[in-house]
Amino acid sequence: MEKLVYPKPPSFAPLDPPPRLLCGPGPCNPHPRVVQALSATELGHLDPSFLKIMDETKELLKYIWQTNNEFTIPVSGTGTAAMEACVFNLLEPGEKFLVGCNGYFGQRLGQIGERCGANVIRMEKPWGTVFSLEEIGEQLEKHRPQVLALVHAETSTGACQPMQGIGELCRKYNCLLLLDTVTSISGIPVHLDNWKVDAAYAGTQKCLSCPPGMAPLTFGPRAMEKLKNRKTKVPTYYLDMSLVASYLLGENGTSKRSYHHTAPINMCYAVRESLYIAAEEGLEKRWERHRRNAEMFWNGLKQLGLEPLVDKEHRLTSLTTIKIPQGVDGKEVVSILLNEYNIEVGGGLGELAGKVWRVGLMGYNSRPDVVLTLLAAFERALKKVGYLQSQ
Amino acid sequence: MEKLVYPKPPSFAPLDPPPRLLCGPGPCNPHPRVVQALSATELGHLDPSFLKIMDETKELLKYIWQTNNEFTIPVSGTGTAAMEACVFNLLEPGEKFLVGCNGYFGQRLGQIGERCGANVIRMEKPWGTVFSLEEIGEQLEKHRPQVLALVHAETSTGACQPMQGIGELCRKYNCLLLLDTVTSISGIPVHLDNWKVDAAYAGTQKCLSCPPGMAPLTFGPRAMEKLKNRKTKVPTYYLDMSLVASYLLGENGTSKRSYHHTAPINMCYAVRESLYIAAEEGLEKRWERHRRNAEMFWNGLKQLGLEPLVDKEHRLTSLTTIKIPQGVDGKEVVSILLNEYNIEVGGGLGELAGKVWRVGLMGYNSRPDVVLTLLAAFERALKKVGYLQSQ
Repeated sequence: MEKLVYPKPPSFAPLDPPPRLLCGPGPCNPHPRVVQALSATELGHLDPSFLKIMDETKELLKYIWQTNNEFTIPVSGTGTAAMEACVFNLLEPGEKFLVGCNGYFGQRLGQIGERCGANVIRMEKPWGTVFSLEEIGEQLEKHRPQVLALVHAETSTGACQPMQGIGELCRKYNCLLLLDTVTSISGIPVHLDNWKVDAAYAGTQKCLSCPPGMAPLTFGPRAMEKLKNRKTKVPTYYLDMSLVASYLLGENGTSKRSYHHTAPINMCYAVRESLYIAAEEGLEKRWERHRRNAEMFWNGLKQLGLEPLVDKEHRLTSLTTIKIPQGVDGKEVVSILLNEYNIEVGGGLGELAGKVWRVGLMGYNSRPDVVLTLLAAFERALKKVGYLQSQ
Repeated sequence: MEKLVYPKPPSFAPLDPPPRLLCGPGPCNPHPRVVQALSATELGHLDPSFLKIMDETKELLKYIWQTNNEFTIPVSGTGTAAMEACVFNLLEPGEKFLVGCNGYFGQRLGQIGERCGANVIRMEKPWGTVFSLEEIGEQLEKHRPQVLALVHAETSTGACQPMQGIGELCRKYNCLLLLDTVTSISGIPVHLDNWKVDAAYAGTQKCLSCPPGMAPLTFGPRAMEKLKNRKTKVPTYYLDMSLVASYLLGENGTSKRSYHHTAPINMCYAVRESLYIAAEEGLEKRWERHRRNAEMFWNGLKQLGLEPLVDKEHRLTSLTTIKIPQGVDGKEVVSILLNEYNIEVGGGLGELAGKVWRVGLMGYNSRPDVVLTLLAAFERALKKVGYLQSQ
C-alpha cells in the first residue's frame, strides 16, 4: 500500500454551532419539525417510496405557489442554481432578455443572462422602488424581448413588485414572464397562475423555514413549449430541465424515471415537511401572520426612531430594510446583536451596503416573541453606540 | 386580498420512509452521527462561526484526499454538479478534452464537455476494464489535449483505474489531469498529490456515509492557474469557481468573504461530520476495512455461484458488479430484495443494464453484519427465482 504523504489528520473540536436567532435575509431558523424530517430514514433516489415523496412534494409546492404547472419541482441546488436553471433553459444565445434591475438580484439575473449569451436589456430603477405597469409596457413595446424577468420580493431592498396586469402584457408581446419569488413564497401572497407567470423559482430558507440546499422551480406550459423547441442545447447538463424532467416526471410522458443525478434525499424530506406545515396552516392565514408580526415590528421601530427604506405600500412583510441613522456605524450594531445577543440581522448588499440593515421575520420566525426580542436587542445596541440615550 | 384559485391543499400522510439497508451504488445509509449533525443549530452563511466550520471541513477534506490544495471545498450540489464545475471551469470552447470512456460516468464527462464547447475526444474501452499507462500515453501523444479526465472508481462497472505514472505523463504533455473519485473517496486508496492530480471531485453519499446534497471538489495550483488565465468567462455563474473562491477562501487573497450563494448549511455540517469520522478512523484502517468486508462478500458470492464482472486486480472494494446468471431475471431479484427484505441493490446502468447487479459496501455499511444480511437475502431471492435449489 502506498504511503500517506499527509499522515496526520487535522484535529478539531466536535461540531457545536453557537445559538442563533436568525433574523437576517435568510437562512432563518428552520421549523423544528423540518429539522426532524432531515433525519428520516435514508432512501435511494430511484426507490419508489422516494419518488412518491417527491411527487407529494411537487403537489404541495403547486398549492403553495398557486399553480397548476405539472413541472413544479425542487432543484438540487440553492436559490442561485434555480435562478440559473430558469435563465439557461428559457433563453438561447442572442435572444432578448429584459430584466427589472431595482436591486441586487435583478442585477444577478442579468449577469446570468450574459453567461448564456443572451442579449440582456436592463430596466433600471432606484433600489427600494418598484416598476409600474406602464414602465413595463413601454419596455416590452420598445425591446420585444423573448423573456422578461422580475423580482417579486427583492431580498436586497425589501420592496415588493405589484404583479397585476404584467402577465397579460407579456402574453400580448409574446414574451415569457419569469418571476423570482425567493423571499415571497409562502410569506406574502403569490398567485402564479392568476398572474400568468410562465416560470418561477424560490428559496427554501426564507418563509418556508427550511434549511438551504434545494430551490423550488416551476415551468408553465409556455415555458415547457419553449424548452421543447430550443434550437441549441441548454448550456448546462446538471441544470438541463429536460433531463431533470425525465427523472422527476418520467421519460416522454411515460412513468419510467431515468437517472440524471442523485437527488439530495434528506433535503427533499425537509422541503416536503416545510411545505406540509405551510399547507396545514393555510396560505391566507400564513400571509396574514407575516403581516401582523411585521406591523408589530414596524411600530416598534418607530418608537426607536428608526425608519424603513421602502414606503409602506410596497414594503415586504417578510423582510424589512431599515435606514441606518446618520452617525451610526451599521456594522457595529450588527456585531453587537450577533456577539452579545446571538441575533443575526443582515447588512446592506450592493448599492445599499452601509446604508441599511435587513431584518427578516420569515416563516417560523414570524412570531410576536421574536419581534419583542429583536426590538429589545436593537434598543440595547442603539444605546451602546450612543444613538439612543441610556437611562 | 386576491382569492386563491386552488384553495384546497393536497392531503398526504406524514413523512414516513420505510426501513432500508442501502447496498446499491449510493446513497448508502448515512452514519448515525452524520444524521445527528444535520440537525445542529442553524447558522447564517456569512456567520464567522459557520465560516470556521467550513474552513475545518476544507482541512479535513484535504487529509481525506491526501492533498495540500488550498482550494478544496464541498460544492453546493450533488456529484454531477461538481463534475460539471470541473469541466466548465477548466476548459474553454474549442480546447481538446480527452476522456477515458470505459463506463457510464466517463461518457457523462464527455457529454458535459460538449455542453461547454470543448472538443471532446473519447478514449473507449470495454466497460469493466481499465486503461493501461501505455494506452494513455499514446492518446496524449496523438491528441495533445488540454485536459485528460479519468474515472478512478467507475460506479457503473465496479472497476478501479490504476493511477501510477499518469500524472507524470500529463505534466510531460502539459495537460491537466482531472479525476472522478466519487466512489473511491475514503473507501479505497486515493493519493491526489502523489498521483499529481490537478483537479478532482467526489460524492458524499458513497464511502463517506453522508447524505447526498454536496460534492467535494479540489483544484491544484495548475488548475487554479488555468482558471485565472481563462480568455472566456466560465459558462455558469452558480458553478464559477472564481466566485465560489471569493466566498469560501476570501476575495483576492484577503480574508473578506463575498456573498455568492447561500451554502446548504446543514449539509455542510453533515459533510464535516462524515470527514471527521473518517479522519478519526484513519485512512489506512478505513481502506483496509473496506477490503476485508468486500473479500468476505466475494467469498460468499462464490458459494452462491455468482461471479463479479471485474477481475480481482482491478475490482473496487466499495462497489461490486455481479454478473446476472443466464436465465435469471435481474429485475425480479432486485425487486424481491427491496420489497421482501428492505434491501436496495442497484441494477446495471447503460451498456450493463440487465447484465449486472451493483452492490455497494460503503463507509458505515462496510460491515460484516451487512455482508451476512446481504448474502442471506441474495440466497433467498435466488431460490425464489429458481436459480438456487430450495431445500
